[in-house]
Amino acid sequence: MVATLHVCITCRAGTVPEEGKLCPGARLYAALTQAPAPEGVRIQPVECLSACRSGATIALSGPRRWSYIHGPMSDADTKAILGFAAAYEATADGIVPWRERPVLFRKHVIARLPPSGEL
Amino acid sequence: MVATLHVCITCRAGTVPEEGKLCPGARLYAALTQAPAPEGVRIQPVECLSACRSGATIALSGPRRWSYIHGPMSDADTKAILGFAAAYEATADGIVPWRERPVLFRKHVIARLPPSGEL
Repeated sequence: MVATLHVCITCRAGTVPEEGKLCPGARLYAALTQAPAPEGVRIQPVECLSACRSGATIALSGPRRWSYIHGPMSDADTKAILGFAAAYEATADGIVPWRERPVLFRKHVIARLPPSGEL
Repeated sequence: MVATLHVCITCRAGTVPEEGKLCPGARLYAALTQAPAPEGVRIQPVECLSACRSGATIALSGPRRWSYIHGPMSDADTKAILGFAAAYEATADGIVPWRERPVLFRKHVIARLPPSGEL
């Protein structure tokens, strides 16, 4: 496991939660964990990534890698997210080459963060 | 040094760069490094935090801590940023209690990310 796919499970994505129904973030997490996870990728729920205006939100991180936070995403993007997580896992530094990024991930980027400890 | 204050030095913050003048991100970095850095805080320039719509952008990170990405910020916020970086450095987990966060940091949050390696 060298990459973690964080999924905000509390994200309402601007909707009013209906009683007995999962919020959009929890729906996305459920969809992502029902599909087979890419090799080397751990899918991790998280309560709030503080990007509520751009939810539902995911983040990719890993040791000695840039982290990327993406949104809005929805359960309709499950296949694309898992494919991108696999591409992220396959990099050495977390930077998927621009030409290999699906439009979804080029446009729906919220922020990125350098590897921890980088000088 | 337990906390890093990343400053995006390429951020144009929606402005058209004028020849011979620093862009808003570089101006913010210059202002932050001219002031005395809080104890335990390293100020680190970074080329693009991919949050261009919310620039100028800063991020706080550290070992076993939540990372926070904030913007828009400007060189007028230098004192507040250094104060908040000191408060971040003083926490164990990177989470400055809500009541202790200046309004600037409550409202201008772009995203946060869990500590790396957290289960």
